Amino acid sequence: MIETRHLAGALTKANIDQHVTLKGWVQKRRDLGGLIFIDLRDRSGIVQVVFNPALSEEALAIAETVRNEYVLQVEGTVVARAQGTINEKMKTGEIEVTADKISILNASKTPPINVFEDKEISEDTRLKYRYIDLRRESMQKTIKLRHKTAQVIRQFLNQESFLEMETPMLTKSTPEGARDYLVPSRVHPGHFYALPQSPQLFKQLIMVAGFERYYQFARCFRDEDLRADRQPEFTQIDIETSFMTSDEIMEMSERMMQLVMKEIKGVALQLPLPRMTYDEAMSRYGSDKPDTRFGLELVDLSDLVKDSDFKVFANAVINGGKVSAINVKGEAASFSRKDIDKLTDFVKIYGAKGLAWVKVDENGFSGPIAKFFNEEAQASISERLNASADDLLLFVADQTQIVYDSLGALRQKLGKDLGLIDEEQFNFLWVTDWPLLEYDEDNGRYVAAHHPFTLPVAEDIDRLLAEPEKVKASAYDLVLNGFELGGGSLRIYQRDLQEKMFKVLGFSEEEANSQFGFLLQALEYGTPPHGGIALGFDRLVMLLAGKTNLRDTILFPKTASASDPLTEAPSTVSQSQLTDLHLSVLEPKNKHE
Amino acid sequence: MIETRHLAGALTKANIDQHVTLKGWVQKRRDLGGLIFIDLRDRSGIVQVVFNPALSEEALAIAETVRNEYVLQVEGTVVARAQGTINEKMKTGEIEVTADKISILNASKTPPINVFEDKEISEDTRLKYRYIDLRRESMQKTIKLRHKTAQVIRQFLNQESFLEMETPMLTKSTPEGARDYLVPSRVHPGHFYALPQSPQLFKQLIMVAGFERYYQFARCFRDEDLRADRQPEFTQIDIETSFMTSDEIMEMSERMMQLVMKEIKGVALQLPLPRMTYDEAMSRYGSDKPDTRFGLELVDLSDLVKDSDFKVFANAVINGGKVSAINVKGEAASFSRKDIDKLTDFVKIYGAKGLAWVKVDENGFSGPIAKFFNEEAQASISERLNASADDLLLFVADQTQIVYDSLGALRQKLGKDLGLIDEEQFNFLWVTDWPLLEYDEDNGRYVAAHHPFTLPVAEDIDRLLAEPEKVKASAYDLVLNGFELGGGSLRIYQRDLQEKMFKVLGFSEEEANSQFGFLLQALEYGTPPHGGIALGFDRLVMLLAGKTNLRDTILFPKTASASDPLTEAPSTVSQSQLTDLHLSVLEPKNKHE
Repeated sequence: MIETRHLAGALTKANIDQHVTLKGWVQKRRDLGGLIFIDLRDRSGIVQVVFNPALSEEALAIAETVRNEYVLQVEGTVVARAQGTINEKMKTGEIEVTADKISILNASKTPPINVFEDKEISEDTRLKYRYIDLRRESMQKTIKLRHKTAQVIRQFLNQESFLEMETPMLTKSTPEGARDYLVPSRVHPGHFYALPQSPQLFKQLIMVAGFERYYQFARCFRDEDLRADRQPEFTQIDIETSFMTSDEIMEMSERMMQLVMKEIKGVALQLPLPRMTYDEAMSRYGSDKPDTRFGLELVDLSDLVKDSDFKVFANAVINGGKVSAINVKGEAASFSRKDIDKLTDFVKIYGAKGLAWVKVDENGFSGPIAKFFNEEAQASISERLNASADDLLLFVADQTQIVYDSLGALRQKLGKDLGLIDEEQFNFLWVTDWPLLEYDEDNGRYVAAHHPFTLPVAEDIDRLLAEPEKVKASAYDLVLNGFELGGGSLRIYQRDLQEKMFKVLGFSEEEANSQFGFLLQALEYGTPPHGGIALGFDRLVMLLAGKTNLRDTILFPKTASASDPLTEAPSTVSQSQLTDLHLSVLEPKNKHE
Repeated sequence: MIETRHLAGALTKANIDQHVTLKGWVQKRRDLGGLIFIDLRDRSGIVQVVFNPALSEEALAIAETVRNEYVLQVEGTVVARAQGTINEKMKTGEIEVTADKISILNASKTPPINVFEDKEISEDTRLKYRYIDLRRESMQKTIKLRHKTAQVIRQFLNQESFLEMETPMLTKSTPEGARDYLVPSRVHPGHFYALPQSPQLFKQLIMVAGFERYYQFARCFRDEDLRADRQPEFTQIDIETSFMTSDEIMEMSERMMQLVMKEIKGVALQLPLPRMTYDEAMSRYGSDKPDTRFGLELVDLSDLVKDSDFKVFANAVINGGKVSAINVKGEAASFSRKDIDKLTDFVKIYGAKGLAWVKVDENGFSGPIAKFFNEEAQASISERLNASADDLLLFVADQTQIVYDSLGALRQKLGKDLGLIDEEQFNFLWVTDWPLLEYDEDNGRYVAAHHPFTLPVAEDIDRLLAEPEKVKASAYDLVLNGFELGGGSLRIYQRDLQEKMFKVLGFSEEEANSQFGFLLQALEYGTPPHGGIALGFDRLVMLLAGKTNLRDTILFPKTASASDPLTEAPSTVSQSQLTDLHLSVLEPKNKHE
């Protein structure tokens, strides 16, 4: 590149005595003893520029007019800083540029966000002035990390003979899954495209087309109510292969993550990654995406307490539920009765009726329910929980799902509150042997736990119609530090099995054909066995960057109400646009809804 | 990768005597002398597999049941083909695999498209069964070329310190440009997102944010009536930089194209690429995207014929138009009067009132209008057109734009019909010095020739308000073989100039603020000088692959009515989806419209 300019952050002692041209932003200006010091920032970093009347009165006079975030072109000479003025915290702190020429390329009003301060700013201001927020070092770093991560992943997949391919954004709306974003058609009145929730069916069709190895950084859309870790549009690393087994797909994904960890974090990831069945994850961690960086595991006591004098425990087991506990090791003294009341309120959020507890001391259990447990019962519970003096034992007795949800969440909260989590650690985990289906109580039917195209494990295929709840899926989720990083599965590749699956999901033949007829047809023309995985790219970047909010990984994210304070999207449109689309807007029934 | 399989197309004599496992599709089956020969195809190519009863009766029996496009797993031994049976046209033609085991992974009905034949198939069948169409060798090659081209471009831009970034798909609708695809908001009744026509404003904001070098393979959307070379969604290589001049941006783009040509076509592109002003392109080629692979240039004769006895010519010049001609060298005898009548009908499509012509022989001009030109006039016209015996001269006399449009189109047609175009040649050309504005007769106002954010050239900025039609833009288009490959410009980076531009375009202050207020505001917070370029990726791939239709470069394209025969998108949606979006569909006034 013909570049007549030097980069501020790249200047070193090697440049001393060179005359350089710099272009960038005023990070800070300081006036001191008749001199002016400007920290000039460009994409590479910052260098100190000094304006000295001895060198140029004119340049000094212009430098006096500049303010933070002005855009400057500066010419000057690189010099060593005097001993005592060297700034070791600064990459370019050994040198400075003595300016002989300056021109103001553009001015700036006083910015509503201080670029050089890393202080808390309201989300709304950050998004409205995103172009300033993004100038902050931590945002620049995250966006650069995002770029580098994408390139490392591409490099890996290209080497593995994957082809990067693009699937359509204007697709067909299908009833399964989350709510679609729709796009009205002008040419076909009353007809709509849907933005893809994922390229699932297209990537399967790419396998039918014989490409065998596909990937895409795919933009996906879900019109759902947003939470902190959701965005209406998000990016997924979408991978599909033919002729590979689950083990081969997992093994390949592991090597991809190994390369990412090495290139981005300098961490040597040991392979193979640990695996855990869904059932084990639920019973040990109360979660299908356990954070394994700390203990506090759930322990099942159902068999020990099924005949307990404490009827809450006994009845939970008799009614088909269970009793599990967490041993908060050595923390008995740290929790007052009031503290425990707060934990009780916490588990109630997850549907638990209460939180039973005992503290352990040399004499055994103490606390309100201690009396229900004789010495023998205490001994067997203590043994199971590895309990000893100074431990706090927390119990939930309820329906199984409630026990898992509430104790799982409580475990996560305690791990965080008690500082048990090593934030530097990256714990990857495969969760396998998922149930294929979940029973949807509200609609009285089965729904796909992943999606309706997931292949059941071979040994369960025969009982798909008879005992759908017992069928396991050929599915695997990749979990990192308690976050679901992604998931995948082998896919159904035979028409008759796909039809059975639709039947189990309550589709009539007509419904199946009108929604997914093209897929059923494709399965009849030489579809290879295939499967894949999709990883949440925004979330991966978030975890790699040590951020806690997805919005910090996305250049122009939306707020929790799916709007953009910067451009003010979504907005009203003209009547002629609506007329072109054959649409009219209904007045909302209740504006305060 | 743990792969227990060999790739069919990768087998060579080096594999002889190896026992291999293959997985792929039956390209063809032939039964011959008690043996069965199957051409087995996977993503790498094809190998011949032989089933011999001497080796396995059982495998032979199964092989007898397979048909084209069945998916097989085959085990066997690689052997050298006997002399005389070597197929030199086939990459694996020196060997074959003698099978001892076969299993059918999936069956196939008789495919509606023959994968091994490269014959014309109806577009509708191709799109409806796209997953079979894509198995054809030419489609596989194009999609692989698309992948490789993308990776070469990424490699180049990464090396130039560009960051790949993602801009939103759910954006704000703006009135300038083509028609937006809209996405109704569920959360904000009566409000809509727009799918981006390009990431123009976001990439400018990325420059405001100080990233300096951005790129993206950006999906863009235009709801326009489609032509053969348009798709409702398309991909553009979107590049933006800060602090670079037009020349620097063009120079960098040239090096990028040089790398692409080298890596994809093995062609050494000479730099710098030729440049031509817009005015020169129009007057010499009648086109702002001239195909310079052949001559037949337009020659302006206005000054020679302004006093001609042929009033059609004289009047065209007097009325402010012009007279130009093409010399169809040595082809006088090839065009009958009927042929010329057809050319006349052709230029009328472009608004020309007629096509004047003469043939040249030793005695001078002949033909209906020859009599209007005396010896002296003939000599001066002949000299200007470098005409000699056996040439056919074709004239259009009309308003300037009509002369350009009609003769430009005629030139292209003749170049093709007369076989003057070397299809192996890649002629790149920069077209520069574009007008900033065009006058829109229908709406009685100026519109931006590129877009409203284009920077005028420095010397014209002062006359933006007074003489907008004379202002040139800091814009450049890259043309390849008569196709606009892409275009770019420097952008306005100062608020007052952007406001003037909106004023020239007829925006009230209120309109400018309500549509583009966020941009105007951003320009006040330290916006660097910036500019960029966007290249049509689908079109680039089309030209590199030697295709003539954009649809052949896109995995799942739409038809001319923006629908997808495969998935049947767009489709009707449920009433509850519409209710969620606060919309009702209007009955079209005339269903046959």
